[in-house]
Amino acid sequence: MGEYQRKTILKNDCSIEKTINVISGKWKPAILNELLKTNLRLKDIQKGLPEASKRALTQQLKELTKDGLIKKKDFNQYPKKTEYSLTSLGTQLRTVFTELSKFGDNL
Amino acid sequence: MGEYQRKTILKNDCSIEKTINVISGKWKPAILNELLKTNLRLKDIQKGLPEASKRALTQQLKELTKDGLIKKKDFNQYPKKTEYSLTSLGTQLRTVFTELSKFGDNL
Repeated sequence: MGEYQRKTILKNDCSIEKTINVISGKWKPAILNELLKTNLRLKDIQKGLPEASKRALTQQLKELTKDGLIKKKDFNQYPKKTEYSLTSLGTQLRTVFTELSKFGDNL
Repeated sequence: MGEYQRKTILKNDCSIEKTINVISGKWKPAILNELLKTNLRLKDIQKGLPEASKRALTQQLKELTKDGLIKKKDFNQYPKKTEYSLTSLGTQLRTVFTELSKFGDNL
């Protein structure tokens, strides 16, 4: 049987969608945007996003870590201290966020 | 009463979120990405995205039109012909999509 070659006219650029998926989320753009400037502790993020529940923030930070955009560092000290920062991949979001922000200014 | 000034450390760059909101959606990235190359009729879009229902495509096209990213042109002819194209604002998505695609290639 002739191999049916579905002619997909719309090349579905999943790279674009993959990026949109990993940066979309209630608090992710704000967290990533701030991490582009400085490393943050959870309490810094909570103070900066007072409307966000700790549970929601922790979940989104976990997803961002799993997606390889951020990393978490535990300092071997008392009192306990952990800090979030961008991975080298995460830092490449700078140009993406610049373009997203520029475009959004026109909306 | 002293006006309580909430010190929001995280500057919530809503421009970034506004852009993410208008380009997010099951079929929007693929539709916009193709409109960056050529104007499209609904049946072209349907052929290119065979998994998408006509209803879903029509809804997302309506939202993209409402958000000012695309426009619809009805040709005064029989048989009926309508064509979608990017607005001047929509064409500014080119650099956004280039960055999103480049980043997504590394995911």
